[in-house]
Amino acid sequence: MVTSVSNRVLSGLAWHRLGEYLHETQVLGSIQSTLYWDQNTAMPSQAATWRAEQLSLLARNLHARQSSEKFEELIAEAKIEFQRIRESGELDPREIDDRAKNLELLEQDLNRQKRLDPDLISQLATAKAKGYCLWQQAKATSQFNLFAPALRNLIALRQEQAKQLSEPRSCWETLAQPFEPDISIVRLRELFGPLRECLPLLIDKVRGWQRPKRSCWDLESSSQKTLCEKLLQDWGRDNEITCVATSPHPFSITLGPKDFRLTTRVVHGQPLSCFLATAHEWGHSLYEQGLPIQSHQWFAWPLGQATSMALHESQSLFWENRVARSRSFSERFWPLFAKEGAPLNSGLDLWHCMNPLVPGCNRVEADELSYGLHILIRTDLEIAMLEEGLDVESLPEEWNSRYESLLGVTPRNDREGCLQDVHWSEGQFGYFPSYLLGHLISAQLAEAMKSSLNEFGGQEADPIEACIRDGRESKLLAWLRDEVHLVGRKMNAENLVEHVTGSPLSSSAFLNYLNKKLEMLNSTS
Amino acid sequence: MVTSVSNRVLSGLAWHRLGEYLHETQVLGSIQSTLYWDQNTAMPSQAATWRAEQLSLLARNLHARQSSEKFEELIAEAKIEFQRIRESGELDPREIDDRAKNLELLEQDLNRQKRLDPDLISQLATAKAKGYCLWQQAKATSQFNLFAPALRNLIALRQEQAKQLSEPRSCWETLAQPFEPDISIVRLRELFGPLRECLPLLIDKVRGWQRPKRSCWDLESSSQKTLCEKLLQDWGRDNEITCVATSPHPFSITLGPKDFRLTTRVVHGQPLSCFLATAHEWGHSLYEQGLPIQSHQWFAWPLGQATSMALHESQSLFWENRVARSRSFSERFWPLFAKEGAPLNSGLDLWHCMNPLVPGCNRVEADELSYGLHILIRTDLEIAMLEEGLDVESLPEEWNSRYESLLGVTPRNDREGCLQDVHWSEGQFGYFPSYLLGHLISAQLAEAMKSSLNEFGGQEADPIEACIRDGRESKLLAWLRDEVHLVGRKMNAENLVEHVTGSPLSSSAFLNYLNKKLEMLNSTS
Repeated sequence: MVTSVSNRVLSGLAWHRLGEYLHETQVLGSIQSTLYWDQNTAMPSQAATWRAEQLSLLARNLHARQSSEKFEELIAEAKIEFQRIRESGELDPREIDDRAKNLELLEQDLNRQKRLDPDLISQLATAKAKGYCLWQQAKATSQFNLFAPALRNLIALRQEQAKQLSEPRSCWETLAQPFEPDISIVRLRELFGPLRECLPLLIDKVRGWQRPKRSCWDLESSSQKTLCEKLLQDWGRDNEITCVATSPHPFSITLGPKDFRLTTRVVHGQPLSCFLATAHEWGHSLYEQGLPIQSHQWFAWPLGQATSMALHESQSLFWENRVARSRSFSERFWPLFAKEGAPLNSGLDLWHCMNPLVPGCNRVEADELSYGLHILIRTDLEIAMLEEGLDVESLPEEWNSRYESLLGVTPRNDREGCLQDVHWSEGQFGYFPSYLLGHLISAQLAEAMKSSLNEFGGQEADPIEACIRDGRESKLLAWLRDEVHLVGRKMNAENLVEHVTGSPLSSSAFLNYLNKKLEMLNSTS
Repeated sequence: MVTSVSNRVLSGLAWHRLGEYLHETQVLGSIQSTLYWDQNTAMPSQAATWRAEQLSLLARNLHARQSSEKFEELIAEAKIEFQRIRESGELDPREIDDRAKNLELLEQDLNRQKRLDPDLISQLATAKAKGYCLWQQAKATSQFNLFAPALRNLIALRQEQAKQLSEPRSCWETLAQPFEPDISIVRLRELFGPLRECLPLLIDKVRGWQRPKRSCWDLESSSQKTLCEKLLQDWGRDNEITCVATSPHPFSITLGPKDFRLTTRVVHGQPLSCFLATAHEWGHSLYEQGLPIQSHQWFAWPLGQATSMALHESQSLFWENRVARSRSFSERFWPLFAKEGAPLNSGLDLWHCMNPLVPGCNRVEADELSYGLHILIRTDLEIAMLEEGLDVESLPEEWNSRYESLLGVTPRNDREGCLQDVHWSEGQFGYFPSYLLGHLISAQLAEAMKSSLNEFGGQEADPIEACIRDGRESKLLAWLRDEVHLVGRKMNAENLVEHVTGSPLSSSAFLNYLNKKLEMLNSTS
């Protein structure tokens, strides 16, 4: 008891008060997340109106807390106290760094919240709800015109929001910050340039291969569930802190410091969809589980949070693509699939099923080869709409012509085309690039992981594949925990990658990986 | 639009403001319920600590709202406005009655909240959490001593609470009011007296019968689920406003005006447990679905709520005992049970399985014959502990000797004895009688229902059985909706029963029903 009191005095009362305030904000935020979880996994359809009222009440309370004068005062007091403590030498250097970073991020977030006109916030909330609703109707009937006015309105409001935030960035860049701190359009074009060039060529190459057509097959829901359970068990699931349910769209969400949830779904006719979605969402969840949130206190501070959506995606994509779609994994798991009734005779069979490499119109169902192009199109188009005056009416046409030229496919209608994704309907601009950045980060981290694993063990050609082959994925996770997860928001995504891999982020690792994989698939088909 | 504005002016602005306040309180309360639902159906075990923080934050906010000066002012203003409107003759008599009753109940609740010292409220919250935790440990190891100090503390705090409420009632009566408005010990003893006398005699009688022993059987979980789904479908489940899940203890809960949830569980070796629990919880849910909450506004007002726990139980017991355990129901459902693998050759077989009539130590598993005695023992003991100086240390001994004398069974340990129920561990005193009152109310309402059904149809000996036989339970529900559910909190349970049946509540209908059922069971075994 004495230790804890003296610790508190040392660490500062203002700091402690700020922590308590953040803690309560976090409790409130996690209630909101719990309602979201329930809405997608259990809630009956007609309960939606009441749920919207619950969520809007919480959102109002949360915004009030996050932009309140009291919060501002607490931050200011903690800063003054921090100056004093820093000079006194009472804290070790690491703790000083952490506090400084926490305060910097809190102030940044507060300033953003404060600059926004509350009227704009409620207008945006209404426009998002309306946009989502109209988008659903428009998608169901494939009539873009139903959605176009709402989209135009959302764009205008978000442009106004960027103006109010008045950051030294372009409109799109400002809106992308919450997802990808410090991202710029110039940097994005630099990173994505090689992909824009190489991916269409690779797709053409694969098209020329004439791989043998595989027969269609499917698996019972219960079999898919069994396989997913086995997967999570092998990948270290702790039932006491995790929960799995089904929902229309798979997602992963954290509801408390020891409460990690994920959902999956069974898609008729796509026997691997549920399995790969589970791998993907578990990757997200592992990142969240590995964040420095082991105490309640950290859970409420910026450094206890994920650093960016691109890094988040890098973690889910690592487990989905680098592990579950790997040759070694198929070798290990194909007997389990066969036992559940899949018509497979070898690991190679399963591996080819896991990697179809056929470009289509749908982003979510795309594989590693064409995924990037889906993102390039969306990123270009949202920048064009927000900054370059592309009129909403021209969106379907622009969309389709870009699909034709980059992927060689044309959507049959707007439902398969520019209405397929939910993001814009909720006014989310700036999110899409995270998915593709995630591919690049995952590949570059995997390179570093390989070197690092070889340092401590033998000299395997690919020590990641070796770990997967032997069912020792826990070694991969341990590396990610130490090098990536525990960083929290201390570094932004690019700094973290450079810190861990020794090189600035680029598309090379991803393109190398893809080339090698295609070669292997070709030589074994 | 004009109509709605003029309605609002007519109906009063103060009334409208009060309604908005209540509405927000209800939204907040329903968030609490959603967390409770999630906790029991999905939440991983280690998330409990964080969940407790979420719930306690909401409880603090809720109590603040329900005892605030603002709330008091809103009620006072609405009362003044109501006087004026009442005199102006602008409202029809029914609406005047409703408003008067709503205001009366709101004031009553507010005064209760206000009289309580906030310190006591937080002491109680801590004592409940501690009590529940110690009770779990005590029950797991069957060591009453572990729990005794916590129970003693809870009793002292609840006695203090009754003192602060200073109602013209005894301590136990004061604490029982939230569950059973207007209940008194004298009235309770009057109602329960005949049961105390007759039930042990009936149990003895049945013991003498020597009914043939039935073989043990069980059903697969999936089969039990199929049967439950069929039951709910037959009983009018609307999937768009309901949701079913599993939890350790079955319960029913309302999360919004169109959001009714229930849970059930599969008990190994008890093939009918899940089915009967579903029938029971669905009965609770039907009552909630039938309350006058079709608009959001009513949902937030006292008259939109259940009138008492006894009435609630009467509804669940009606569907469980009067319908699902009826002869006609077994005749209709036994082929479905047989199809799922139950070793049954006739409706009679199933009916006897549904009505084992063997007294045991466990309340939850008790059937209609012995259930009442479980309640009498608990009611007597909690009154003795709160008002008559029965020391907590003597509880196990008192418990066991009463079981021996009333039911002829002796618990093997305290886990099977006085530690079996959760209620006291959370400081809930005054709840138990609701269960037994529910049996009486259900039986008396069923008598009235019979007469009423015969008025409109033929002259069946038992028109309820006839409806069940023909799968027309919707007729039973329609009657309950009109006569019982739509009343909300307009009348207390006893007034409602007298209003509907024409006679004051008594144990006669229940004892008659029981005698007749036993005779039929005896003559067919």
